[in-house]
Amino acid sequence: MPSNAQLDFLAADAPNALERLKALVSIPSVSADPAYTPHVHKAAEWLRQTLSDLGLDARVMPTGGHPAVVATTPGSLCSAPAGTPGFLYYGHYDVQPPDPTDLWTTPPFTPTMRDGCLFARGASDDKGQVSCFLQALRAWIKTVGKLPVPVTLLIEGEEECGSVGLGSFLKEQRELLTRGNSFVLVCDTRSWDIDGVCTPAVTYALRGLVYFDIQLHGPTRDLHSGVFGGTLANPATLLTRVLGRLFDDQNRVTLPGFYDGVAPVTDEERARWAKLGFSEKEFLAEAGVTVPFGEAGFTTLERHWVRPACDVNGLYGGYQKAGAKTVIPTFAGAKVSFRLAPGQDPTRIARSFETWLRGQNVGGCTWKFQQFGEAHPVQTPTNLPAMAAVRRATKAVTGHEPAMIREGATIPVVAEFKQILSLDTILLGFGREDDCIHSPNERFRLANFELGCKTLTLLLGELAKG
Amino acid sequence: MPSNAQLDFLAADAPNALERLKALVSIPSVSADPAYTPHVHKAAEWLRQTLSDLGLDARVMPTGGHPAVVATTPGSLCSAPAGTPGFLYYGHYDVQPPDPTDLWTTPPFTPTMRDGCLFARGASDDKGQVSCFLQALRAWIKTVGKLPVPVTLLIEGEEECGSVGLGSFLKEQRELLTRGNSFVLVCDTRSWDIDGVCTPAVTYALRGLVYFDIQLHGPTRDLHSGVFGGTLANPATLLTRVLGRLFDDQNRVTLPGFYDGVAPVTDEERARWAKLGFSEKEFLAEAGVTVPFGEAGFTTLERHWVRPACDVNGLYGGYQKAGAKTVIPTFAGAKVSFRLAPGQDPTRIARSFETWLRGQNVGGCTWKFQQFGEAHPVQTPTNLPAMAAVRRATKAVTGHEPAMIREGATIPVVAEFKQILSLDTILLGFGREDDCIHSPNERFRLANFELGCKTLTLLLGELAKG
Repeated sequence: MPSNAQLDFLAADAPNALERLKALVSIPSVSADPAYTPHVHKAAEWLRQTLSDLGLDARVMPTGGHPAVVATTPGSLCSAPAGTPGFLYYGHYDVQPPDPTDLWTTPPFTPTMRDGCLFARGASDDKGQVSCFLQALRAWIKTVGKLPVPVTLLIEGEEECGSVGLGSFLKEQRELLTRGNSFVLVCDTRSWDIDGVCTPAVTYALRGLVYFDIQLHGPTRDLHSGVFGGTLANPATLLTRVLGRLFDDQNRVTLPGFYDGVAPVTDEERARWAKLGFSEKEFLAEAGVTVPFGEAGFTTLERHWVRPACDVNGLYGGYQKAGAKTVIPTFAGAKVSFRLAPGQDPTRIARSFETWLRGQNVGGCTWKFQQFGEAHPVQTPTNLPAMAAVRRATKAVTGHEPAMIREGATIPVVAEFKQILSLDTILLGFGREDDCIHSPNERFRLANFELGCKTLTLLLGELAKG
Repeated sequence: MPSNAQLDFLAADAPNALERLKALVSIPSVSADPAYTPHVHKAAEWLRQTLSDLGLDARVMPTGGHPAVVATTPGSLCSAPAGTPGFLYYGHYDVQPPDPTDLWTTPPFTPTMRDGCLFARGASDDKGQVSCFLQALRAWIKTVGKLPVPVTLLIEGEEECGSVGLGSFLKEQRELLTRGNSFVLVCDTRSWDIDGVCTPAVTYALRGLVYFDIQLHGPTRDLHSGVFGGTLANPATLLTRVLGRLFDDQNRVTLPGFYDGVAPVTDEERARWAKLGFSEKEFLAEAGVTVPFGEAGFTTLERHWVRPACDVNGLYGGYQKAGAKTVIPTFAGAKVSFRLAPGQDPTRIARSFETWLRGQNVGGCTWKFQQFGEAHPVQTPTNLPAMAAVRRATKAVTGHEPAMIREGATIPVVAEFKQILSLDTILLGFGREDDCIHSPNERFRLANFELGCKTLTLLLGELAKG
């Protein structure tokens, strides 16, 4: 581990960095629920102010939905010669809904330190990781007054609800976001233990996503199930019947052509992954599960990283409280999503699902079909020039080069960076698998916060070396 | 229509009978809502006083919940020789909540005459029908000073909230309620139009019911569906898959042995029902539905009255609000009920369902299985001795024998009369399908009130003939 002015600053400023992160996660910027909108705006303003205070040109910019925070490096704040390539840093300041709130040990928006971790919604995803980058900027600006390379920041407010308006925003602001930038850096993924050392990981492939709310509507009012039971189509019964047909007995998705175009796993990847020491048992244990379950013919790691999947994310309709109510509900609904592998096209899958649904016999009921977001799967070349700087910075901090991994989850905007901005993305992650992102008791280890701050601080310096 | 002193009395006393019914429905005896409890007690006391004034031995008796009014006929009030068989009349004085009250044209507890109907909560269900019986008693007592047969009355106060305490009450008071009685008479069902003439109907069969809350539990917390999707059992996905298997492609329930013991529809019944003029279109239109849907090989009337059915009454689990949340829920649940045909045993069906559920492959998830209530189906022999008296009385009033119908819904207490009191029940109904019971603007046509008073008055006389 090198010693330098920036790392010394990080060590001295760590308590302040934690306080700033606490302030940010105290703002309940839940993007999916309109009730939280004022807080979403407050979080955007908090970031703008913080970046302005550091000397960047920062502003809150309107999008179709929640605003985005954009900041650029004025020439006077950068020590590199004019024309030195910079990069676009992307993160998000919105968070998942905290439900079910009664399972949180401490309230989701009251950040609390416990066992070396900061517990709060957003502590890791993504306010914690964004804060690593803010701290890296601060380390340079507070020590030498300048950044070693020019950076542009884009911190959006709709990642957790599908980044719906971001595509148009990228198109409109293409020039602002790409000027002088040669790649995108995203810190919203995980680290990896190598020989017991928690090491930043480069995630070079992501699954895509299509997400739906589907409702089946039948009788014009809730009916007495004694009087009408058995005589007409019950939307709740039929919804389960239709969804039950989505899989065959090998746990393969039955939509026609669903697996068309899915790239096979290469032998080279299989060999590399074998060295990562992935433990199926530990992976499932994170979820409190002992039995793997999924598409026949693949390992758990392959199901996790490479294979497409389909999940029912929610069910609702009819009587849901304690006890019994003998009702045939007027409608029932489900949230259904597909994770897509590189090679699958979300538009085609969405159309195929809707066509399939509408082709089912639902006894005269009618579908209401609503789609939320559409994210292409992503695969980033591992030989990008900036990747060398990432390797050096990581090795300097941890003694290891970053783990090269894939990820089952989706970061929709990464595909859009390629398609709209023509920029490849390096996903460099500092979170941990057990951070409970999207779950109660989300947390970020202080050790990982420190790892992120150090690695990104050194990365800025390494990038200046070209 | 015969003319006799009792019918003459009914004609002369009709305005007073209406005033008494108005007084009874003015008491808001809503049993489900504790706020109305004083009114529930007031209604019980009103009935006790009315029956006492007529000369019966009447009392308000405590149960586990709201009290029951019980009255017996002293020997001096009965003209029949000692040992003449009597019967138990059952009704209820509690009513449904009036909500939504803003949909009532006139207030629910301010009885109002309009278009030949009395509008009020309870006007039909069941205070109106109970009042028919009170008026029949009055017709005999005020003309000849005695009843032609001994009667016992049981008017309970918890029918609209599940008659929870009634089973124990029947067990405790078995001797009092059965002494000298050969059957139970219940007036809480519908009439039927025969050749345009509104005619009392005998409902000789009811479906039974078993109701379940089932939950499938998997991961110990809600998971990110991107990270874990495809690698482990999703309880919401698997719940739909399992429930989807409850039916085959003929809409038959797939539980092994489910239909064992279900009595077939006899040709005699089919022929009799063909004359009833049942309109499938009108029946489904009540529900806002145009397409019949159900077990292959049966008509809508058969599905409604005779065939067992299975319904999902509610679905819950995972993300249920607006928008998208990419979660694998820790559990998902459903309310599932079975309507049972005569010949099916609820205990056996409940056990069969649980066994079937536990036999499904749910990838390591676990079931939580909770049962609510268990009502046996009911079939009353149509050749009971008292049935002949019912036929004669009905024919004398309307020119038609009563319509012999079934009902898809469940009246749990009827099965309890058989099991606990060893008495068959004759359900003789004077209400109409469009009385809006359980809905705003409940009403009772004066013509139906008169029909009930006359039929029950003549029935008392016919029963004395044996």
